[in-house]
Amino acid sequence: MNSAIGTPKEVLDTPALCIDLDVLEANIMYMAQAAHSMGVGLRPHSKTHKSPAIAHMQLAAGAHGVTCAKIGEAEVMARAGIRDILIANQIVTKDKIARLMGLAAYTDVMVAVDTAGNIADLSAAAEAHGVTLRVLVEVDIGLGRCGAMPGEDSLALARLAHESKGLRFEGVMGYEGHTVMIADEDERRRATEASLMLLTGTADWVRSAGIDVKIVSSGGTGTYKITGAWPGVTELQVGSYGTMDVQYYENVGMKEFNYALTLAATVVGVKGSERAITDAGIKSLTKDFGWPLLIDPPGWELTGLSEEHGWLTRRGGAALRPGDRVTVVPTHGCTTINLHDEYHVLRDGRLVGVWPIAARGKVR
Amino acid sequence: MNSAIGTPKEVLDTPALCIDLDVLEANIMYMAQAAHSMGVGLRPHSKTHKSPAIAHMQLAAGAHGVTCAKIGEAEVMARAGIRDILIANQIVTKDKIARLMGLAAYTDVMVAVDTAGNIADLSAAAEAHGVTLRVLVEVDIGLGRCGAMPGEDSLALARLAHESKGLRFEGVMGYEGHTVMIADEDERRRATEASLMLLTGTADWVRSAGIDVKIVSSGGTGTYKITGAWPGVTELQVGSYGTMDVQYYENVGMKEFNYALTLAATVVGVKGSERAITDAGIKSLTKDFGWPLLIDPPGWELTGLSEEHGWLTRRGGAALRPGDRVTVVPTHGCTTINLHDEYHVLRDGRLVGVWPIAARGKVR
Repeated sequence: MNSAIGTPKEVLDTPALCIDLDVLEANIMYMAQAAHSMGVGLRPHSKTHKSPAIAHMQLAAGAHGVTCAKIGEAEVMARAGIRDILIANQIVTKDKIARLMGLAAYTDVMVAVDTAGNIADLSAAAEAHGVTLRVLVEVDIGLGRCGAMPGEDSLALARLAHESKGLRFEGVMGYEGHTVMIADEDERRRATEASLMLLTGTADWVRSAGIDVKIVSSGGTGTYKITGAWPGVTELQVGSYGTMDVQYYENVGMKEFNYALTLAATVVGVKGSERAITDAGIKSLTKDFGWPLLIDPPGWELTGLSEEHGWLTRRGGAALRPGDRVTVVPTHGCTTINLHDEYHVLRDGRLVGVWPIAARGKVR
Repeated sequence: MNSAIGTPKEVLDTPALCIDLDVLEANIMYMAQAAHSMGVGLRPHSKTHKSPAIAHMQLAAGAHGVTCAKIGEAEVMARAGIRDILIANQIVTKDKIARLMGLAAYTDVMVAVDTAGNIADLSAAAEAHGVTLRVLVEVDIGLGRCGAMPGEDSLALARLAHESKGLRFEGVMGYEGHTVMIADEDERRRATEASLMLLTGTADWVRSAGIDVKIVSSGGTGTYKITGAWPGVTELQVGSYGTMDVQYYENVGMKEFNYALTLAATVVGVKGSERAITDAGIKSLTKDFGWPLLIDPPGWELTGLSEEHGWLTRRGGAALRPGDRVTVVPTHGCTTINLHDEYHVLRDGRLVGVWPIAARGKVR
């Protein structure tokens, strides 16, 4: 692969996952300023970009920590020198709890809990390892996935965590995953606010029991304005805003950001004048929310993906030939990024960096 | 990760992509014997398993070469000592053609061509590098993706390749990708035979022009019995049969094989008695052809995948608790395997190997 600094985008070997650094910086800065103006902290979710380089940019712009989905992702961030890490899921098995103790010893890791049994396991492990582990009680605020029921159940867990040796109860978290992609803004706001009441209401309930709640963490890119402005929320777990994707920009309408993430592909064949075939199929671009968006050349549309090929249909554009380049925006950044080993980082169309997607595939 | 040889499956850290070695061997042997009895050669497609270890098993069972989708995959196979490699796609860019020349110098690589311009480029490069590159003319036998039109157009390319310095014309290939997954067997047979007539008819046309056609290559797992028995086809490019998946076994009905590939996951949470949540979402299991199949425990069904979680619904099974193990069969092996870094290879429920998925992510 041609990866010399200064290489023009047009000669990068393809399929090449590309980051426009100007746009990435602008997206990161926009969210940082929005959070600042709302008076809420930022703990960007690294499950989207899976890159310590991007996490460090977010921290430099004012984020106070990162969020991870998996302990393997947290280890990647820790190895890159990041200390304030939230694993926003439950760590329930013996092997993983042992790894979590390692993180607790050398970073300020924090983990979500939603059962008394897990709190007991974590407490015993922390005591045995001589560490203090920070925990947030996860509250199910309507997604119906993980998390304890709001109110009484969550309070009982908060109390247990607060009283457990080896643990430090820091607060509560939720995730309004069922509202972040509601296309209609008013509907999204109403559904999100109904969720957040369950979260901040639970936090207040815990406080009224005499237990300090420092952190109330929630939010996704689609709800950052709602969740960030909600009284009592202390930090946002937004992930997709940095790289952006078609689902959030076009379908959810987050037009204050721009596409930093694109895929460069190459035409490998044409069928008459109306169809062209590229070298980028579903092993390069996921289709979780429909076909990715072809933005260059104009007058062509991506209308299909097989495993190793993209199918383009002419919509009035000039003829394509084998070897021609095309640019596609992923529909879903999180899953598309997770297919690739590195970002080709570009400024003004020239390669300025090749960043490993270091947490790619860290499902454990 | 616990990866000591002899580790019981039940304590592998999850999500863990697992191979049952007995089943894999039986699948490989079954296809080898089927091909042998039909008198057709085997060139298994490595885009499914992406593993030199499995490719070597297929070669040991009688395959004479491997098929790859990408030059990066071919390089992985070449580095593992495999010489007879077909890249069943077009290599059209300067950088990739240079890499292809490296393969041509040190292996018996073969590549698909479907335009005169590409044949000229490959010929010039082969001459410049002092190598001989084997080529197959790809014929579009109905998929409508890559390949020249059958008959006259393909003959013209065969003649050009035959006469081009630096190239050795070896024959033709097709891919009946539009028929391999037709559920009804009779319909699949009719559609496949109509495709194969275009391929072997083209081969005969080329021969009647006085050009030797040694190789006529086609076939997928769903059509191996039809394509392997078709007069004039010399080799099968089957891929999925080794590991198998729900799409081929259940939907297409290839019940002569069995599931060698499974994913072990762990319950991380439950919601009442009717729902359980696992640690394996769409970053561990793709949903190209619907939800993967939960085969253990009985009485539960996988009914949803979010990014990092699987959603299970109770169908009469016993209650699940956090920490319980579940086993899932991927709907689509090719894309699921491509998410993971290694196979956990099991015999009688014990770990006997950890095989790198060495060609994972080799999209270039």
